[in-house]
Amino acid sequence: MSVEAILPKVIEWERETGRVIVLDQTRLPSEVTFIACDQVAQVWDAIRRLCVRGAPAIGVAAAYGVCLAAGRAARGEWRADSLAAIEHLATSRPTAVNLFWALDRMRAQVESTAADEDGLLFGRLLDEALRIHEEDRQLCAAIGRFGAGLLERTLATIDATSGPTEPIGILTHCNAGALATGGIGTALAPVYEWFSRGKTVHVFADETRPLLQGARLTAWELRQVGIPVTVLADSAAGSLLASGRISAVLVGADRIAASGDVANKVGTYPLAVLARQHGVPLFVSAPHSTFDLTLRDGAAIPIEHRSGDELSAGFARSPLPAGCEFWNPAFDVTPARWISAIITDTGVIESPDTERVRRWHDAAIAGR
Amino acid sequence: MSVEAILPKVIEWERETGRVIVLDQTRLPSEVTFIACDQVAQVWDAIRRLCVRGAPAIGVAAAYGVCLAAGRAARGEWRADSLAAIEHLATSRPTAVNLFWALDRMRAQVESTAADEDGLLFGRLLDEALRIHEEDRQLCAAIGRFGAGLLERTLATIDATSGPTEPIGILTHCNAGALATGGIGTALAPVYEWFSRGKTVHVFADETRPLLQGARLTAWELRQVGIPVTVLADSAAGSLLASGRISAVLVGADRIAASGDVANKVGTYPLAVLARQHGVPLFVSAPHSTFDLTLRDGAAIPIEHRSGDELSAGFARSPLPAGCEFWNPAFDVTPARWISAIITDTGVIESPDTERVRRWHDAAIAGR
Repeated sequence: MSVEAILPKVIEWERETGRVIVLDQTRLPSEVTFIACDQVAQVWDAIRRLCVRGAPAIGVAAAYGVCLAAGRAARGEWRADSLAAIEHLATSRPTAVNLFWALDRMRAQVESTAADEDGLLFGRLLDEALRIHEEDRQLCAAIGRFGAGLLERTLATIDATSGPTEPIGILTHCNAGALATGGIGTALAPVYEWFSRGKTVHVFADETRPLLQGARLTAWELRQVGIPVTVLADSAAGSLLASGRISAVLVGADRIAASGDVANKVGTYPLAVLARQHGVPLFVSAPHSTFDLTLRDGAAIPIEHRSGDELSAGFARSPLPAGCEFWNPAFDVTPARWISAIITDTGVIESPDTERVRRWHDAAIAGR
Repeated sequence: MSVEAILPKVIEWERETGRVIVLDQTRLPSEVTFIACDQVAQVWDAIRRLCVRGAPAIGVAAAYGVCLAAGRAARGEWRADSLAAIEHLATSRPTAVNLFWALDRMRAQVESTAADEDGLLFGRLLDEALRIHEEDRQLCAAIGRFGAGLLERTLATIDATSGPTEPIGILTHCNAGALATGGIGTALAPVYEWFSRGKTVHVFADETRPLLQGARLTAWELRQVGIPVTVLADSAAGSLLASGRISAVLVGADRIAASGDVANKVGTYPLAVLARQHGVPLFVSAPHSTFDLTLRDGAAIPIEHRSGDELSAGFARSPLPAGCEFWNPAFDVTPARWISAIITDTGVIESPDTERVRRWHDAAIAGR
């Protein structure tokens, strides 16, 4: 059975009611519950509170959010309300560029609709949102195929030097799986593709503080599918890499600059440095919508800082002294030099740098 | 007011009752409660459950535990019961060598007491335990002075290149403060000494998963004393070091091999690699009782693996899918080459290696 048939849908447009149905990932793994949104504000809140999260899924959710506005606007207000929704949704989270990429596509639909075609706007927006969603599904599948090929080549190198290594040991951080996308994930797509080819794999999932997406989401979705997974504290990843049990580190991305520098869940950068130290490749998986070539390098990527409450939330008793100060960046930037390859939906960028990203981009555009 | 006057006593021998009183650190910061032990088994349990933790404090607790056995033994059983207690306490935790060092000192007292001097044994054991405790207090103070000098020299270098840096930014991991020792701590001793000299300091404390000793203990004890502290997720330390706000990383140690390789709370090794990457020195603070020169290098240090339950414990709802597998090493090993200096009670070992550790050891013995 396919991954998509096993796992619940992360996000869906409900045609009968004209609502956006979102899996509430803050309740996983103990509850599988859904939020039905009929207002833009609810979608904004679902993104902000991380009910829907993961760069690609945020883009899809935002696109559907614009449809809610257009679908409920008073006659004559369709255009203004849609544009207002786009502006508002863009403020939900700052780092993942897929959000802005999806909203730009929705804006283009508004702008290409003539003033006297207002009645067509909702249909066009919904078509575009459904297209973004379906495309994302296909991008994930393509990443899975390119990534599985890369794993194959990586293993061939290891096998040649130290013998066969199955089950392949994969370390991942946060959740860049099916729950983060409209398809089978980004970082986990190669794992699912690998597994579907009948090969064995054991995933080690960093729990990923503070919101535990690794423990709550990655461990849950892999177990649903039947892939062995072991959870560890983020700070144990150094020992795990030193133990020699990991063949590759796979992570997703929230924004990739022209230099190949990658913003992803905080903790990715330390993993990249440690992986290099132990000769383990670090692969970043991301669709082309995650690239932001308007930014020269990672220093220009805005990093979201979230409430310090996240560090004490969820515990039966707060682990922190009252009034304690926090520092809680949600993402970090991994300089391209620490990244072995970026796996995209149109191919693999090995040892990424500005020149190689540009060449990949030109070829990707030519191929479209 | 001194640090020791402000903070509660971590461990104490209660003369009137012949009991060991231990601060229950599993209840901090929300409750300051104590456990009164009159049985060896209670001390064993307090060490195992981390009510008392930190390499030096474990040694002190174990020494008092032996006194409990001797004090409550039937006439004629003093010797056998004391030796049995020593054997039993040695099984409480495997990594911190101070435990075995303290128990060896207690065993020497038993062995140097003649068969017909049994009645003297309890007094000798208690004197030795009190000596171990008092010595630890002095070792911490000495580490504080050597460490403050080292910080002074480190800052002078930074000041010379990029101007004055007060308040000095210190990153620490886990708790190697007053709560981990019989005195003002190991890693935090230089911070307290620095602060007591009227200089400003801002400590950044890794929360330290899974048991949150950084958030629960380090943040609490520094706030009690009035030193500014900011808590961060362990995986955010990479970004913090990249931000340039940290002048030095200070950590403790549970065991140091002849090579200078250091076992300490899991997550220390990643910090050491990242600190080097950003040109920030990593200083390990430890008394001479933490050195185990019988081990050639870090590979020989036994690493405690604890229950995976620690990764889901404390949360209002378990963050983990039912039946999830875990990997939960409590410590990791930092190879000596990543350590800028080890601060001991008899001086600083800069850029430690086998030769420099041996020279320090010979000088320390000569000086005793």
